[in-house]
Amino acid sequence: MLACLTLLLYTIHLQYVNGKKKKTIKNIHCLSVFIFLCLNSQGVRKSYREVIDVSWGDPHRAGVKPLSFVRQVLAACLYPQLMDGDKLMVDVKQRAQRLLETCAGGSVGSYSDTAGIPQIIQSVSEYILRRDGGVPCHPENIYITPGSQWALTNILKVLVNSEASPRTGVLIPVPCHSTTIVSLTALGAVAVPYYLSEERGWALEVEMLQQALDSAKGVCNPVALYIINPGNPIMFKFYKILKFWTCFVSYKRALAEIGAPLSDTVELASFHTASKGLMGECGLRAGYVELVNLDPAVMKYIDNLFSNSCPVLGQVALDVMVNPPQPGDPSYPLYLKHIRASLAENVRRVEEVINSFPSFSCQSLEGGAFAFPRVFLPPKAIEKAKEAGLQPDTFYCMRLLEEAGLLFSPGTEYGQMEGTYHIRFCIMTPTDTMEEILKRLSTFHKQFMREFA
Amino acid sequence: MLACLTLLLYTIHLQYVNGKKKKTIKNIHCLSVFIFLCLNSQGVRKSYREVIDVSWGDPHRAGVKPLSFVRQVLAACLYPQLMDGDKLMVDVKQRAQRLLETCAGGSVGSYSDTAGIPQIIQSVSEYILRRDGGVPCHPENIYITPGSQWALTNILKVLVNSEASPRTGVLIPVPCHSTTIVSLTALGAVAVPYYLSEERGWALEVEMLQQALDSAKGVCNPVALYIINPGNPIMFKFYKILKFWTCFVSYKRALAEIGAPLSDTVELASFHTASKGLMGECGLRAGYVELVNLDPAVMKYIDNLFSNSCPVLGQVALDVMVNPPQPGDPSYPLYLKHIRASLAENVRRVEEVINSFPSFSCQSLEGGAFAFPRVFLPPKAIEKAKEAGLQPDTFYCMRLLEEAGLLFSPGTEYGQMEGTYHIRFCIMTPTDTMEEILKRLSTFHKQFMREFA
Repeated sequence: MLACLTLLLYTIHLQYVNGKKKKTIKNIHCLSVFIFLCLNSQGVRKSYREVIDVSWGDPHRAGVKPLSFVRQVLAACLYPQLMDGDKLMVDVKQRAQRLLETCAGGSVGSYSDTAGIPQIIQSVSEYILRRDGGVPCHPENIYITPGSQWALTNILKVLVNSEASPRTGVLIPVPCHSTTIVSLTALGAVAVPYYLSEERGWALEVEMLQQALDSAKGVCNPVALYIINPGNPIMFKFYKILKFWTCFVSYKRALAEIGAPLSDTVELASFHTASKGLMGECGLRAGYVELVNLDPAVMKYIDNLFSNSCPVLGQVALDVMVNPPQPGDPSYPLYLKHIRASLAENVRRVEEVINSFPSFSCQSLEGGAFAFPRVFLPPKAIEKAKEAGLQPDTFYCMRLLEEAGLLFSPGTEYGQMEGTYHIRFCIMTPTDTMEEILKRLSTFHKQFMREFA
Repeated sequence: MLACLTLLLYTIHLQYVNGKKKKTIKNIHCLSVFIFLCLNSQGVRKSYREVIDVSWGDPHRAGVKPLSFVRQVLAACLYPQLMDGDKLMVDVKQRAQRLLETCAGGSVGSYSDTAGIPQIIQSVSEYILRRDGGVPCHPENIYITPGSQWALTNILKVLVNSEASPRTGVLIPVPCHSTTIVSLTALGAVAVPYYLSEERGWALEVEMLQQALDSAKGVCNPVALYIINPGNPIMFKFYKILKFWTCFVSYKRALAEIGAPLSDTVELASFHTASKGLMGECGLRAGYVELVNLDPAVMKYIDNLFSNSCPVLGQVALDVMVNPPQPGDPSYPLYLKHIRASLAENVRRVEEVINSFPSFSCQSLEGGAFAFPRVFLPPKAIEKAKEAGLQPDTFYCMRLLEEAGLLFSPGTEYGQMEGTYHIRFCIMTPTDTMEEILKRLSTFHKQFMREFA
């Protein structure tokens, strides 16, 4: 049934957490820091020396070191005199040289075409072609953008008819970052939630999509499906780089394999960003979108709309993202060491520690920036939260912040099945930071469960 | 009279040319390159080896070298290991260190607050305070933005009521970059042109504003005045850095000096960018806007709207822009040499060469990216242009491109007094490039005038 519905298929390969921090959490944070500095309400000095904020999908903020290769290429492009000495590897110099040649006037300080530097768009299209096993990818369908959130918001503007009656509906997963819902609502569209199956590792199930479609009847006209890929909406596919090609499922490839007429008619917009993944370069504001099967008239409009071009240094970083050092390259050994360093170990430790508590349940972290474990809160804690006018998991997170100095997000901010509670935290940290987080969380959790037993 | 009108006063200290190139010129360019490669229509090989494109306000594209201090600080922020050696001056290292400390996790790869990094906003506000001789500047009124065009477009969105009847009117100068008119029209507003006085060095005259206001009667409701400052709309104040403080007139300061009630009620948005001025770092996408006297409810809305934060490296560049090396700093001598290098000489030579022709008239270039000389075209040339269905200055520019390999813009793209014709070209080039441009222009112009005498 679903296959018969011509959907605009929105794929987020790697979701992106907006630079804008939710006010609520900011307030909690300020409150907590205040409490921390002033001793707590009972005047007892806290056991922690500083608050660890893992509520953001911002690896560098959490102390993760940037990839040397990326930073060296960027620094050499900015200050080409660096290429004169012998401090930089030859492949860094070659890459920087090649990229500078694509810049007008040989400088990253000049404007680029609004869709992006043509040679970098070409690199991106070749990367997508390889990823999808040869499914054609046309450079003219790719726009380099200042981050993927920007691109998503603008594609939604094209998609949503604010004056339509019934209103435009967009199917969105639950859990999902609240910025998407805010964007949709601001445009006058209806966010139609479909629940992911936590038990199946946050899988997308056709039955749930059908339920969501049924729920939209009489409310709105659902025209698009928003997917965060891989299935776990707050998980990003990147840490097991060596497994990447085997476990990543491309919606574009799947669409091509369905065959005509769907493969020639279903419109798809697929986003990616340098902010997540192995790079974690949120500050560079760089991403891309590939648009498939869009009407030429719409493409012409998008050509105009997407004129807020990506910073040239961000474009340079995207080139490195889609063409990382390869075995045999001088920079490869250091690159490999870096990407293997901490995340696989963090994933292992988070799963191990969290799942050692019967009152926690954490799905396998198949690569991504966040863990989103379920927490089984005791009735007394739920009652206490209600007395305080808080959602139970918000109450838990506030206590976690006050008692253990850990800034997590409550699952309630992302949506969850009624009666279930979750906590969400970024796992992209140095290993010692993650050990400290898990130690504080374990101590706090035991105490919390005892208090409300 | 004008002073009694509560206007939203839009000041562009430094106008910014959008990365998006006008299609028309792009087409002319392609056409020209084609002709150049294939010999001209008469099969005669051209005298030039390559086309020089000075139609953009993009100094690096034209071959201007970036400021070393800026690039060194940026490179050191990206790759802090550079600070270990002795290649960089101590003030570069200190600046990079201080700026890295303002970044979350000490990395330019982390997200910043959406309004910008607080310490950099503070630097900008102190710069404005100094510029305006102590008129208060509140950091909470400043937003760091991805370029000033982006900020301008978004402020216009706040200003224009698309559903108003009569429609919202905005007074815009003539000449003016076409993107502003396109933005206004797209929002459903009316661009109400006011002519600048070319004879008085492109000065803004109150009588002209009054005429524009009168012309708006019955057509729209003019609520804002858009000014490009200094008076010459396509001139930017930067090359005479040592004279900067003496000749820059700040509209914010002027507003403060008028006194209450206007100084407390007139709403002003003032933009600046790292793309122009001494930096010319268009590729970094960095600017700021200061908002004065805006309603708190509107500020709250803007707080939300301006959530597309500026790349962190762009913010770093803004810090350098508002705090360049000072006398006594180790980097100062090189910095001074760089900024004195070419532009003052270019300005002198452009004025000298252009004004040596009676059929040209170039106003004094008081600092800026472009020259916009008037060209007195012979009647036969005007007739020939009309036969070809072209504006006379477009015809001139096309011939200039074909015959001399110079890509200039015709004044008609920016608006001009009826019956006057202009050409526009960027003067931010290396001196030898400017000599080549002036040589080609002189040869072409003599020949053109002879042909149509």
